[in-house]
Amino acid sequence: MSNFVFRIEKSDTDSRARAGTFSTPHGDIPTPVFAPVGTQATVKTLTPDELYELDVKLILANTYHLYLRPGADPIARLGGLHRFMSWSGPILTDSGGFQVFSLESLRKITEEGVIFRSHIDGSEHFFSPEKSIAIQEKLGADIIMALDECPDPLDYEYNRIALQRTHRWAERCLRAHTRPDQALFGIVQGGIFPDLRSESVRFLTSLGFPGYAIGGLSVGETKEQTWQTLDVIVPLLPADKPRYLMGVGSAEDLFEGVARGIDIFDCALPTRLARNGALFTSHGRINLRKAEFREDPAPIEEGCTCYTCRHFSRAYLHHLFKAEEMLGLRLNTIHNLHFLLEWMRRIRAAILEGHFATLKAEFLSRYVPIADQDRQRSKELARRRGRIK
Amino acid sequence: MSNFVFRIEKSDTDSRARAGTFSTPHGDIPTPVFAPVGTQATVKTLTPDELYELDVKLILANTYHLYLRPGADPIARLGGLHRFMSWSGPILTDSGGFQVFSLESLRKITEEGVIFRSHIDGSEHFFSPEKSIAIQEKLGADIIMALDECPDPLDYEYNRIALQRTHRWAERCLRAHTRPDQALFGIVQGGIFPDLRSESVRFLTSLGFPGYAIGGLSVGETKEQTWQTLDVIVPLLPADKPRYLMGVGSAEDLFEGVARGIDIFDCALPTRLARNGALFTSHGRINLRKAEFREDPAPIEEGCTCYTCRHFSRAYLHHLFKAEEMLGLRLNTIHNLHFLLEWMRRIRAAILEGHFATLKAEFLSRYVPIADQDRQRSKELARRRGRIK
Repeated sequence: MSNFVFRIEKSDTDSRARAGTFSTPHGDIPTPVFAPVGTQATVKTLTPDELYELDVKLILANTYHLYLRPGADPIARLGGLHRFMSWSGPILTDSGGFQVFSLESLRKITEEGVIFRSHIDGSEHFFSPEKSIAIQEKLGADIIMALDECPDPLDYEYNRIALQRTHRWAERCLRAHTRPDQALFGIVQGGIFPDLRSESVRFLTSLGFPGYAIGGLSVGETKEQTWQTLDVIVPLLPADKPRYLMGVGSAEDLFEGVARGIDIFDCALPTRLARNGALFTSHGRINLRKAEFREDPAPIEEGCTCYTCRHFSRAYLHHLFKAEEMLGLRLNTIHNLHFLLEWMRRIRAAILEGHFATLKAEFLSRYVPIADQDRQRSKELARRRGRIK
Repeated sequence: MSNFVFRIEKSDTDSRARAGTFSTPHGDIPTPVFAPVGTQATVKTLTPDELYELDVKLILANTYHLYLRPGADPIARLGGLHRFMSWSGPILTDSGGFQVFSLESLRKITEEGVIFRSHIDGSEHFFSPEKSIAIQEKLGADIIMALDECPDPLDYEYNRIALQRTHRWAERCLRAHTRPDQALFGIVQGGIFPDLRSESVRFLTSLGFPGYAIGGLSVGETKEQTWQTLDVIVPLLPADKPRYLMGVGSAEDLFEGVARGIDIFDCALPTRLARNGALFTSHGRINLRKAEFREDPAPIEEGCTCYTCRHFSRAYLHHLFKAEEMLGLRLNTIHNLHFLLEWMRRIRAAILEGHFATLKAEFLSRYVPIADQDRQRSKELARRRGRIK
C-alpha cells in the first residue's frame, strides 16, 4: 500500500474548491494547506515549537540552498532534513530548478542539465534531473519535485521549446526516483498559453505522478492571466491527486486559488513582508514603520489570537522595528503566518460546511489587496496635493 | 510595611556567600541571582515566554537607551516598562550613567549633571540625578539606580574627585525619588582604591539605601584587583541589604562574586557571546564557527536540559551561523543564558545545603576560563610549530 493517500472529504458545489487530507510518512496534511518557506532548513526566525504552536502542517525547504550549504551529504549523514532541523511534520523540497533559472550568474542549459554558479562563492555546479532527485532523496523530504525549466511565462517560443525538455526531464526524474517514502510531483509548465498548458497536463498525467505542481505562474503575468491559466489546467488534472500552486500565498490569492481547485500553496512573501514590517490584517496590510503606530496601544489586529497580538502593542512592535531588534522580526513573522494559516483553516471549514462562497465574498469585501492599497494611497496623496477634486 | 523585604535564608560558613530572597512588587527574587540584559526593552532575540521558561527571575533594562528610544513618556503612557514589553517579573534599570560616561561623543560634566549627545542622531541631552530618577520612575522598574560618575578604576585622582560628586548626586537621587514601589540602590564607587571604596561605603550606608550596587569594576582592572576590591567593600556593607555587582557575569566570576558576598549580578556578555557563536560548556567556551562542528551530531553540551540542547546538534547550529540565520542567534542565546542560570541555581542550592565550597572547587577544576583557553591554544599552536618541546 502506498505511503501517500489523498482523500477528498468534500467538494464545493459553487467552485472547484475541495477539502481533503493528504497522508504522508510524517503525518496527515489537511488540504487546502499553506506551507511556510524554510529555505535554509529554518523558517526564518522561528523554532519548530513555534511552527507546531501555529499548527503548521507542511513546510517547504529549498534544494538549491541546502545543496550548496551545508550540502546534501552532511544532512544525510546527520539523519536527513527532519532530524537536522528537528521538525517532525511533513516537508516538501523543490527541485532547485526555480532558483537556478533565477540566478543572474552564468549558466548553460543543455539536454543533460544546467550548469550554474553558486551565489555564495561563485563555484560552478551542475544539476541534472537525476542529480536533483539524488539530492532530494538525501534530504529526505516527504514530497519532492521534478526538475523543470522555468521560462518567462509570457514568451511563447521559449515556453514551447523549454516545455519539451521539461517533459523529458520529468520522465528521467521518475526513472531516477527510488524512495517509496517520498511522493515525486510532476510540474506543469507552459506559461500563460492554453495550448502549451493543456499539452503539459496531458503529457505529465500520462506518466502518472502522485501529485501535480503548477509552475511558472505568479512570476510576471497579471493576476487575471494567473487565474485564467488555472482555469485551463485544473479541469484537465485528475481529481484524485493533490494540486500544488507554487509560490503563491497572499490571503486574497489563497481564496482565488482554492476556488480554482488548488490544494497546496507555498510562498516566502508572508515571512519576508513580516521582516520588512508589513503586517496582514483583515482590512489589508499595515506598515509598522509608520510614525502613526509609535504610541498605538492596540494589537496588530483586534481579536487576533496569535502570540504577538495576545501580548504586544503596535507601539512595542514599532519600537522593536526602529531599534532593529530581532525579536520584532520574530513577532511579525508569527503574526503573518498565523493570519494566513488561520484563514486557510477557515476556508477548509467553510468548504466542509458548504459556505465557502459566502466566506470568500465576505473576506474579499473587507480586504483591500496590496495593489489597491497602493492605488488608494496614490489617489489620496494626489487629492491632498489638489490634483484630484 | 515596605514593598521590599530581603530575607537571608542561609549564610555559608566557609565564605561570604549567602542565599536569600528579595521580595519586589513584581515577585520574589531568589538570591544569588543573575539578571540577563534587555537593553532596549527586549532580551535580544527572546520572548518573555522564553525568559519564563528559562526561569529568569530579574532582567535589566537600560535607562539611557529607553530614554532616547522610544522615550520614557511614551512608555509611561503605554502603562510602563512591564506592560510595554509584556514581562511580568521584576525589572532593574540602571541610571544611564554608565552609558553616558562611556560615550565617545562630546560631553560636559558639571555639579548639576552631564551633557551628552545621542548615539542615534547626535542630538544633545542632559542627565541630572533628578532627571535620571524621573525617567526611571516613568519606566517603572522595581529596582532603580542612583546616577553616578564612572571613572577609570585605576585613576586615583579622578576617582577621588568624582567620588564626592557621586555622593552628592546619591543624596539628590534619594530626595528626588517618590515611588514607594521602587527600591532605589546607591552605587559604591572609588576604583581599586581601598580608602576611596571604604569612604564610599561609609557615606552611602549613612544615607540608608534598601540595597547597594558596586560600580566601576570589571572595566579595566585585573581580576585579582576586582576580588581584592570586593574584599574591602563587602565587609563594610550592612549584612541585611542586597548587594549588586554591576556588569559581571561569566560563570567563573559568578562563583568568585558569590563567595565574596554578592547577591545580584548582571552582564550583557553571555547574550553577546551567543550572538558571536561562543557557547558555554562546563569545560569552557566553544566557538561554533569552527569547521570541526560542521558534522558534529552532539548537542552543545551533553546532558544540558535547555531547549537548544534537547533539539539541535552542533552541526545544525554551525549551519545556522554560517547561513546567517536568526534562529541560530536565538538558540545560542537560550543555551548561554540557561547555562549561567542553571549554575546560579546550583550555587544557591549548594549554599542552602552547606556545600558551596565543594561545588565551587569542582566547577573551577573542570572549567577553563576564557583567558586560559586562549593561552592554552597559543601554547598548542607554538608546540605544533616546534617552538616548545
